Amino acid sequence: MSDIEREVHAVAQRAKDAAADLAPLSRAVKDQALLAIADALVKRADEITAANAQDVERARRDGTSPAMIDRLTLNPARIEAIADAVREIVELPDPVGESVRGSILPNGLDLRQIRVPLGVIGIIYEGRPNVTADAAALCLKSGNAALLRGSSSAYDSNTAIVGVLRDALEGTGVPVDAVQMVPGRTRESSTALMRARGLVDVLIPRGGGSLIQAVVRDSTVPVIETGEGLCHVYVDADADLDKALAIAVNAKAQRCSVCNSAETLLVHEAVADAFLPRVLASLAEAEVTVHGDDRVQAVAAAHPTGATVVEATEEDWTTEYLSMDLAVRVVPDVDAALAHIRKYSTQHTEAIITDSLSTSRYFVSRVDSAAVMVNASTRFTDGGEFGFGAEIGISTQKLHARGPMGLTEMTSTKYVVTGDGHLK
Amino acid sequence: MSDIEREVHAVAQRAKDAAADLAPLSRAVKDQALLAIADALVKRADEITAANAQDVERARRDGTSPAMIDRLTLNPARIEAIADAVREIVELPDPVGESVRGSILPNGLDLRQIRVPLGVIGIIYEGRPNVTADAAALCLKSGNAALLRGSSSAYDSNTAIVGVLRDALEGTGVPVDAVQMVPGRTRESSTALMRARGLVDVLIPRGGGSLIQAVVRDSTVPVIETGEGLCHVYVDADADLDKALAIAVNAKAQRCSVCNSAETLLVHEAVADAFLPRVLASLAEAEVTVHGDDRVQAVAAAHPTGATVVEATEEDWTTEYLSMDLAVRVVPDVDAALAHIRKYSTQHTEAIITDSLSTSRYFVSRVDSAAVMVNASTRFTDGGEFGFGAEIGISTQKLHARGPMGLTEMTSTKYVVTGDGHLK
Repeated sequence: MSDIEREVHAVAQRAKDAAADLAPLSRAVKDQALLAIADALVKRADEITAANAQDVERARRDGTSPAMIDRLTLNPARIEAIADAVREIVELPDPVGESVRGSILPNGLDLRQIRVPLGVIGIIYEGRPNVTADAAALCLKSGNAALLRGSSSAYDSNTAIVGVLRDALEGTGVPVDAVQMVPGRTRESSTALMRARGLVDVLIPRGGGSLIQAVVRDSTVPVIETGEGLCHVYVDADADLDKALAIAVNAKAQRCSVCNSAETLLVHEAVADAFLPRVLASLAEAEVTVHGDDRVQAVAAAHPTGATVVEATEEDWTTEYLSMDLAVRVVPDVDAALAHIRKYSTQHTEAIITDSLSTSRYFVSRVDSAAVMVNASTRFTDGGEFGFGAEIGISTQKLHARGPMGLTEMTSTKYVVTGDGHLK
Repeated sequence: MSDIEREVHAVAQRAKDAAADLAPLSRAVKDQALLAIADALVKRADEITAANAQDVERARRDGTSPAMIDRLTLNPARIEAIADAVREIVELPDPVGESVRGSILPNGLDLRQIRVPLGVIGIIYEGRPNVTADAAALCLKSGNAALLRGSSSAYDSNTAIVGVLRDALEGTGVPVDAVQMVPGRTRESSTALMRARGLVDVLIPRGGGSLIQAVVRDSTVPVIETGEGLCHVYVDADADLDKALAIAVNAKAQRCSVCNSAETLLVHEAVADAFLPRVLASLAEAEVTVHGDDRVQAVAAAHPTGATVVEATEEDWTTEYLSMDLAVRVVPDVDAALAHIRKYSTQHTEAIITDSLSTSRYFVSRVDSAAVMVNASTRFTDGGEFGFGAEIGISTQKLHARGPMGLTEMTSTKYVVTGDGHLK
């Protein structure tokens, strides 16, 4: 074991011990601690912005893009917003202790399945330092210890924020080691976290596809995959084309950089001639570049709309653009749409636009994704929209949690069985 | 890729395609297929026993123990029992399609979370060929395709059984490739299964600790750990000693070879003098060898009961005996019992025997195991006892499923969101 591995394991062991003390705490104790955290963030905003300034200066020297520098930058207003997000988590119900099911068994045993914390949650995330406080607060509220491993580009900011959080926990009843930063800035330290099986109960990577794939590949700790979204909108033969038009543009262009935006539009050939000229015009207006198949290109040539239409290649069907680009394909029927989705989807969100109840039923039962939208934009797959209050990420895997992960999805369960001397 | 890897991946790809067709099938179609399977097993019992005879003969030649040969052997009565178990699964409710939660969101969107199959489930298991039909039936009922990898010692039996199952599926509407055996008898073929990420949704190892640990270590496919049970019984200062005595003996000796039997007995020192002589006598009567700490040995010396009491070493606290051996330790208080459990438990099942409501509450909230028994034997942690009808295993992990896994735990969920042209 290298020094950094030993250090990471020591931190993880402290997290495990803290988790044992945190698990039985009442909601009131945890909420008081969260309020103390929110207050401390605002009170000590100067320290945090001073540390952040060092990260920002380093990023500038390294030639980081203005967009990335903006994501990295903290100011008093943004810190206030982070504190407000923590206060919103205070208002959410505590999932711990919820009775999931229960009954009296035929032999008189009283069986209850209740929600308990997972234990120690490791979060590996990229540039934005606001994730630090947000992830820690969600972990604490759900009774879990947080091990935070942010980007090295935000190391000073994260160190300052975690320092403020830990100071705020002093005397609240929540163990200070329930929030810790993983030591080290190198890849070795994140690898040590991924190998801390038995100390860390789950790893949640938050960020781009390459980060998530690296964690899935290297981790021996169970991982919840989040966020990759190659989402499809299918416009059926029986679609209301006005609604289809509005949804296609909204799903792509309302905010193109997020995982629940659409990347591919599939159009039933029966409505292709009526729909494509209209949607190409609207996409042109929204400044979306279309990557179209032969049929789409032919329609674009026949109906000049000012749209930029380039030839779609195999790569376009597999690309999560996260930009103002949209792949568009004409399909002969709903089965072809389903086959395309089955082949290329990341199983995040797919939408069908149709007025046919039977086609909608068919599509919904055969799409294997975290969310299926019927006559609604893919952009609604979101913990806030779904009423969960906050989310730690959107799971694209099938085990444990699927779709937006709120506090409930950050728990496990245990069975409590009460008898009176029962023997088998 | 080696030939066997290519072969295993081809089988897994067929399973994935079959799973897509299986997912939307109704309960009626699946139940008819299961009844056809049960009938075929009985009708073709001769073929199965003939194949089994080859496995048994090979095992004899290899000098396999009589107990193992008994577990391997099939006869018409045992095949009838396997068929009956399949018929019992027919009677269980279908978890697929169950609405887990649902509401109308403030914007009018209709949100429903519904149960869906996991997809492809790989089962890696040891000697007993009855697992083959049982696991396949549980997978089919929950809408999942089964990839079965049994022990090479039961290869001929498993091949015959899977052949019967697949023939029975012909014409039922359930795709034949929903049940497949993983080709090959070598370690390479099971390793290929463990690496079929993207084709196999989850692996469930069923068997001893070393099998399970090997799968956890080598698999890139998500694994559900099952079965390792180092279970504790804690006799509190406020225990009813008659009940404590009966439960301690039952938990150990009623059937010692199973995961929910007790391996360690912890006794509060306040009741040690009153309880230990009695429990040592009862354990002696049940022919249990006691591995005791100094205090236990002293009591045994002072009160000759005919009990075999040997010195407990560190190894005894970490051993899942699965035999008529029990480690016994005296602890100063409930916190010491909890600390011992936290250090040595496999997080399967722990029991407390107490009449104190506050101590029971304290113990239950601080034990981090799949099941906590209060005044009941650890032997009750079982899918059948819990009323789940059947189980694919007992999960000792915290993600996805914890404790006995019935049909519900063999599913995932998806969100279906229905709107009327909703835009974000």
